[in-house]
This record gives sequence, structure tokens and C-alpha cells, in this order.
Amino acid sequence: MRNLISIEDVSPDGWDALYSLCREIIDRPGDYVDACRGKVLAALFYEPSTRTNFSFQSAMLRLGGSVFGFAEPNATSAAKGETLADTVRVAGSYADAIVLRSPLEGAALAASLYSELPLINAGDGGHHHPTQTLTDMTTIARLRGGIGGMTIGICGDLRYGRTVHSLILALSKFRDITYYLISPPELRTPDYVLARLRGEGAVFFEVSDLHRTLPELDVLYMTRIQRERFGDPAEYDRLRGTYVLRRDALDAARRDMLIMHPLPRLEEIAPDVDGDPRAVYFEQARYGMYIRMALLLTLTRLGREPAAPVRTAAQNGGAVCPNPSCVTRAETYLPQLSREDARTPGRLYCEYCDGEIK
Amino acid sequence: MRNLISIEDVSPDGWDALYSLCREIIDRPGDYVDACRGKVLAALFYEPSTRTNFSFQSAMLRLGGSVFGFAEPNATSAAKGETLADTVRVAGSYADAIVLRSPLEGAALAASLYSELPLINAGDGGHHHPTQTLTDMTTIARLRGGIGGMTIGICGDLRYGRTVHSLILALSKFRDITYYLISPPELRTPDYVLARLRGEGAVFFEVSDLHRTLPELDVLYMTRIQRERFGDPAEYDRLRGTYVLRRDALDAARRDMLIMHPLPRLEEIAPDVDGDPRAVYFEQARYGMYIRMALLLTLTRLGREPAAPVRTAAQNGGAVCPNPSCVTRAETYLPQLSREDARTPGRLYCEYCDGEIK
Amino acid sequence: MRNLISIEDVSPDGWDALYSLCREIIDRPGDYVDACRGKVLAALFYEPSTRTNFSFQSAMLRLGGSVFGFAEPNATSAAKGETLADTVRVAGSYADAIVLRSPLEGAALAASLYSELPLINAGDGGHHHPTQTLTDMTTIARLRGGIGGMTIGICGDLRYGRTVHSLILALSKFRDITYYLISPPELRTPDYVLARLRGEGAVFFEVSDLHRTLPELDVLYMTRIQRERFGDPAEYDRLRGTYVLRRDALDAARRDMLIMHPLPRLEEIAPDVDGDPRAVYFEQARYGMYIRMALLLTLTRLGREPAAPVRTAAQNGGAVCPNPSCVTRAETYLPQLSREDARTPGRLYCEYCDGEIK
Repeated sequence: MRNLISIEDVSPDGWDALYSLCREIIDRPGDYVDACRGKVLAALFYEPSTRTNFSFQSAMLRLGGSVFGFAEPNATSAAKGETLADTVRVAGSYADAIVLRSPLEGAALAASLYSELPLINAGDGGHHHPTQTLTDMTTIARLRGGIGGMTIGICGDLRYGRTVHSLILALSKFRDITYYLISPPELRTPDYVLARLRGEGAVFFEVSDLHRTLPELDVLYMTRIQRERFGDPAEYDRLRGTYVLRRDALDAARRDMLIMHPLPRLEEIAPDVDGDPRAVYFEQARYGMYIRMALLLTLTRLGREPAAPVRTAAQNGGAVCPNPSCVTRAETYLPQLSREDARTPGRLYCEYCDGEIK
Repeated sequence: MRNLISIEDVSPDGWDALYSLCREIIDRPGDYVDACRGKVLAALFYEPSTRTNFSFQSAMLRLGGSVFGFAEPNATSAAKGETLADTVRVAGSYADAIVLRSPLEGAALAASLYSELPLINAGDGGHHHPTQTLTDMTTIARLRGGIGGMTIGICGDLRYGRTVHSLILALSKFRDITYYLISPPELRTPDYVLARLRGEGAVFFEVSDLHRTLPELDVLYMTRIQRERFGDPAEYDRLRGTYVLRRDALDAARRDMLIMHPLPRLEEIAPDVDGDPRAVYFEQARYGMYIRMALLLTLTRLGREPAAPVRTAAQNGGAVCPNPSCVTRAETYLPQLSREDARTPGRLYCEYCDGEIK
Repeated sequence: MRNLISIEDVSPDGWDALYSLCREIIDRPGDYVDACRGKVLAALFYEPSTRTNFSFQSAMLRLGGSVFGFAEPNATSAAKGETLADTVRVAGSYADAIVLRSPLEGAALAASLYSELPLINAGDGGHHHPTQTLTDMTTIARLRGGIGGMTIGICGDLRYGRTVHSLILALSKFRDITYYLISPPELRTPDYVLARLRGEGAVFFEVSDLHRTLPELDVLYMTRIQRERFGDPAEYDRLRGTYVLRRDALDAARRDMLIMHPLPRLEEIAPDVDGDPRAVYFEQARYGMYIRMALLLTLTRLGREPAAPVRTAAQNGGAVCPNPSCVTRAETYLPQLSREDARTPGRLYCEYCDGEIK
């Protein structure tokens, strides 16, 4: 793995190596305070994301490396009309690895085409966010002694929630996991995710009642319902309060259940849950820092490599992805990259945003 | 001391230890370039404050530590609806100490309830700003050889100026200090501050003429009159030009008088004073960095400690502080914390902002 | 050299020393990872400039030093009414060197009057930008083995483009350079720049056709036509597309020609040029980091020196420069500094912005 664009870039062996390094860092942090000495990370955040930004920054700093970058679009050269490709190449001139956050779907893949440095996707719109999934996997692995062999409930917006899709895809590679997918009917898990579970022969249940499901769970993964994913504000207001976990409901849960959340949380976990020892969402944030340390240490060792020559949109004929949030709509020089899918013959999908191209 | 919320958290012994370390750092800075190696500071500035932010950052960096954080509210997760408590816990997952600046009174105390890390108040609205007071004390101690045994004039807005109140409370613990409190009648020192001076048996005079007082002084502490503290702009405009110190007025002052100012200054010290050797306000800024180095070095050694369980507002009955700038008005889950005061029996005061609760 | 305000501050010997150090850093970067350990840079950017800011930050970080500062005006103390002089003195209290970027012409010279630390101009409006010129010189010297003895074409806005003027002034000190100055008639090189070329006996041609000139060139320096330099938007729209370099035009150029650009580029270099080995504009950005490393290492060794006493505007009589972008218009306390020019006897020029004072 040179670039981390999607959690699918992490092979089972890749995960084992990463988590093994992560455990060493957790257990002997003092051995790593100079591990990235002299290395510099470029953190390009085209939209604010305090938590993810802090996590990457502190990860790099704790390895003895350093960080430069921007935290919001106003401070960027995009205001001077510079393309993403050029910003990545210039920032790449100064750094040893790049972390990119963008509101545009496919931005990380697009940027990686022009990057001489390893590039990490820190979120591309509602599309991928692989280091969140690594965070979740690390938390489960560390606190349960492994990932396989558990019953996990995943609750909230399972339709639009990208962290949930990535998590399920990643977990599907492990054995003996039973899934309770807890959502209102309007926010059910998309078919392509369920198809993966079926393909791996996993046991899963789609349910809508959190409290009845609670006693079955080894892990409860709560998510917030995000306003920005809804076209219709009325639908958001109707659904946002569907699931609220309160302290008293936990009496019915296992004593060693883990309550996880990608944060920030809104009202879906009441503050009185925070004091319960099963609430591990703040520890989870800390594990996110540790796995990012392992990731940055691994990738910054790879060094600079010339980017492969990229065809331009003009050379390609310039077919256009219809998804208005796709990076190809804003960065019009990008080559068209598309693929077919064996399950839906005759249809074309955009490589950047995975949307269907008609 | 684990948290520095108010200057009252610094005991006389605490001050001696801190200043003693500070002197060592000033005299042998080379011994400390790695003192915080591997340590990370979270600097959470919910309102911009260049000077304070720079001072903390450079302090941490000069100890070989590093810093992440935000410098203004737009870049924060607060925009996503996250509570102060959660932001502090998440940032605390990544760091070794937290510095917090907020426009809300009591924000630092509120944040400390949820923090596993030592937390430093870098200003909570018009309430406390203890590291400014430490800066002032360090400057006097270093340039005069000690704090007691002097005549100090404090000039400007003594009513709303929080740095002035803290400074007086801190100085009141030292011996043989005579105070000239120089202000227009509208901006006199509040009673609770004067009560402290009386209680310690200190000699003080409330006067309104700066130039007649000048010859008496060992230290002149000028402050600016801050627009943001006035409800009525006309009153601000009337009072802002009351005191202007010019070079020629200094002929009447002692040759070794110190002219101090917390900065930024507006028109209250004319630029022609800057060249006078008695003008030490820029040196004062530098001493602010040194004492913050001593503070950060001391606090980052304390390590992580579980936060005590916090009752929620709901559990508490949810009484409300009437001060619109109190942190409890924005962070509504906070427990009500109040205290009585022996001098005003029957009245309740808010622990966060010190305002009266009826 | 203590301050770098204009490229004219770099003597031929100064350049030799700087470039020689730069070459060592490029060839043995590992020897310099601790060269600025314990040193802190203040980066004061009163207007956003991602590229320049990143370049200085990464330069300092790669030397083992650290950086604090602001990246845009909103986050600054200027909002509290603080003068440039005070901000420089306070930031200088915490740092070992200062980098300043401002939209005001002459801001760097003004700031240097009050600075105890070495100060570097990272751009003062449309006036000077000396580290860009150092970047250009380093690129040519490194990739051609030296600066003299070449034919260079400089193309685009030669009238308003400050990087071009500085570059020509700097190159004029080297021998055997032939210049092709390629621009539309409206954007010709100013007379004072041409006068310098004539004074040094250089051979130069003013032409308007890029493609006919291309075969003559060892170096092609492209620039963008900047919207912000034009009073009349219609004139900008008419001229912006004058020069566009495309891949197929390069067939007529020398095989070892260097294509340079200060970046960001807009449409003046088509994306299909990027893959050509003659396109070195991204390498150029990297050389900019290296020469800034050499500069920062050299200047941070100089230490703190008291600023010379500065007369105030009031003491000076307060004559006013008529240039509305001159720093003296915003910072009214600045002393008037003017000079005569032997070539135009009887006229006075502002030392800050070089504008004529009538």
C-alpha cells in the first residue's frame, strides 16, 4: 500500500502489519518519539475537520515529525484559481507524505494521480474515510483482543453514513461476526454493502429497535444522523431523534459491551452514559491517534516516487460523471476513469466517486 | 496545582517554585530545549488572541514540545454542534496538556471538569487570565529583584480590566506594597478587590491624576480601555483618551521606574515612550513566554488522570446563572455549581463566572 | 545581510555563500535535521499565501526548528488596533527570526525598523518578493551548473509582475546573459528595469511573439497575468490569454531548455506540458524550500540586536507618500524616509514603497 484512498486498500496482511506496529507504539511510545524525526507531513484540509486534523497532527508530532498545511478553504491557493493537481504537487515538493480532506467525492484518488508522495484520504465528502475505519478496528482489536468472533450492533443512519459502510466492508473480512443493522426503514444499509455480507456468508439482521437488540451485543456502534446528508430538512428533523442511548437502558446490556461512536456525537448518546465504563468513544479517539502513528510511520518510509504520467481530460474525450459532488466536476482536467462491475454488466461506474455514469 | 483556572490557584509556594524554575530557564535556556520532547500541547482558542496564543506556542516549542489546535471559532467542531466537554475530551485524547481561551466566563473551569489532562485558562471572557498575571509578577520580580517592597501605580480601566483585578489579588499576598489606583471615577476598582487590599492591611490610594502620581512610583502599570467591555459606545469614546503617557512626562518619574503594559496598547502610551529605558512592556512579553515555559514544564509532568464523574444539569435540577456571558448558558448540560460567601450571607454565587444567582 | 527586504540586499558574495550552503543542504539533508534545533520562526502573513508560507514552514521544520504565526489577517491582533511595529516587537519577543507577508508596499522595511530579530520579506504587495528571486536563481544555478552564459526568455506581464523585475535585477549582475522580454505592448518592462540592463551592458530584445522566440532559449520563464494588478477588468480579460504554452509548441525548443514558472499558474501553461522533462516548475518549488533553508540557517545564527531608535512621524514633520498602497498610509507613526536618485535630480522617492513623493 502506497496510498490509502479507501479501506479496501488495506489487505488483511496490511492490517496485521499496521496493527502490530500500532500495538508496539501503544505499549512503548517512548521508543517512537524520534521515529519520524526530520520528516514533514502536509495536511491539506479543504474543509474544516477539527478532530481528524488534530488526530493526524498529534500522530505526526508524537513521532517526532512535523506538520504544515491549512485547515479550511479560505486560506488556500484554490482562491487564486490553482488546481488540486498543482496544489498537491507543490505541497508535495516540501513534504514526505500528504493527508487530504475534501468535500468532493473522489478528491483523494484524483490527488494521488499527481502525487510523488504517499497520500492518505482523510475524508472525501460522503465517500470514503478509511482512517476512521482503522480507528474503529483498532479499538475493537485492542479492547476485545481481536476482531472476529463477536456480535456487533450498528445503529443510526446506515444509508448515508460512510463510516458505517467502510466499517462493515472491513469487518466482512473477519470471521464469526454477527451483525445487527439498526436503523429506521428510510435509512437502511445500501444493497452493495449487504451484498458483501451475503457474499462472505455473514449472519446479519436488519432491525429497527435498539433497546430490544441491546442484550445481544458485544459492541454497539452508534452514529449520528448528519444534517448535511439530507436533501430535505424536514426528513432530517423527523429522523434525528430516533435513537437516543441513555444510561438506564444499559442495565439490559452485557457488562463488557463496548459503546463506540466516531464522534462528534449530538444527542444520540446522552451525557449520563459517559461515566459508564462501557463507554469507550473517547478512548476510541485515542486509538485513532495510535493507528495513524503506525500508518504515518509506515508510509513516510516509502519515499518519493515519480507520479505516473496522467492523461488529461482533453486527451480522453472528456466524458462527464453526472454526480455533482464528484471531483471531476470541479477539476475538469482530470482524465475520465471508469470501470465495469461484474454484477451489473453493461453499466459504467466512475472510478473517482463510484457513481454510475450513464 | 493541576489546573490553572484563576491566579488564586497559585499558592505562595507554588509561585516560588514556578518562578525559581523560570529563572533557571531564563539563565540557561539551552538546558531546556528538550525538556518537553515528545510532549504535545492542545491550544484551543475559541476566540483569536494572537499574543497569548503565540506566547504559549513559543513556550512549548522552546521546550522541544509541539502544539496543535485552532486559533478561531470558525475552524472548530463547535460548528458541528459539539459540546465544550466533548471537544476537551477528544483533544485531550491526543495531548499532554490543554490551553483554553474562550469568550465565555467560566469556560476554563467547565472544561477542567471533563479533562484528564492539566488545563490552563488562557482567558475566559472578561473573567480570569491568570498567565497574564504570572507574566506581570515575573517581570517585576526579575527586574526589581523581588515583588514586595514597592509602590505601584495601576492606571486605566480599573473597573472592567480583568488583568488588573487579578494582578492586585496576586500582589496582595506580598508585603510592603503601596498601591495608587489611578482611574476616572466611572472606572474605579470594584469593591471586592478593594476589600482584599483592606483585608491584607495594604496601603492604597484611589486617585484620578496620573501625572501628579508619577513621581511616587516604582512601577507604573498602564492598561488600555477596552471597547468591548462597554455597553455604551459614547461612554467608551469619552473615557478612552483619559490617560496618555508621553515621553516628556517621564522627566518627573523615578529613573528606575518600570513602565509596564499587558499589550496590545492603543493610544495610552505614545510611541515616543518606547525608546525610554524605563519602558519594559516588550521585555514583559518575553517574560510571559518564560513563565509559561515554567508552567508548561511543570504541568506536563503530571500526566493523565481520570476526570472525576460529573453530575449533569438534568441530575442537578438545572438552576440557571443569569449572567448571559456565563458558560452555563451555552453549555446547558453543565452541573450547577454555586457557593455562598461569608461576607454576603444568604446570597449564592455561580462557581463558573462568579456572578450572583438570585 | 541582517534583513532581506529586497533582492538588492543580497550581494554577489552573499549569493555565493547562500547558494554554497544550499548545495550542501540539497546533497546532505541529513546533516541539517538539527541545525535549527531550539530555534523558532515567527511567520506573520497579513494576507494568505499558501505556497510561500508552506515553503518557509517546511524549510524551518526540516532544519529541526519550529514555527508559529498567523496565515491571514482575521486572526491577527491588527483587528484589536495594534500597530505593525508593536506586533513585530511582540512576536520578536518569542522568536529567533521573522518572516513577514503584507499587502502593503514597504511593510517589510517598516517592520525591520522595529525588529530586534533578522526579518525576511515574504512579499510586500506588488513591491518586493526576494525569496522568489532566490528560488529562481537556485533553480537555474542547480540545473544549468551556473547562472551566467545563457539566453533567457521572460514571458507574460512584464509591467506589473514584481517577480520578473526582481529576477532581471538579480540576473543583471551575472555575465553573458541575453534577454528576450516577451510581452504584449501594454505590459512592457518598466524603464527602470531596462535602464539597469543597459547600464550593465546586457543584450536584450523586447518582443511579443513567444513561439518565434522559443528556439533561441536556454530558459523560458513564464508568468501569469495577475488580475489584482489591473485597475480595468476588461483589460485583464483581453490580455490574460495572450500566451499559452502547449506541448506541441515545444518541438521547436531546445531539448535542454528549462521551463520555469513562479506558480500558481493559471492557463498560461497547459497541463499537457507537465509531463515534458523540460518542465521544471515543480522542482523549482522544491529548490525554493532549499534556498530558504540556507537563508533561515544563516539569519537565525545572527541573534538578537537592539533595534536602532526610530524617529516618529510627528518628530519628522509627517510628509506623506501619495501611494495609497504604501505602508505609511496605514501605519501613520512611521518616520518619513525618502531619497533622491542621481538619474532624476530634484525628485524625492519614498524609501518604503519606492514611489515618487511630489
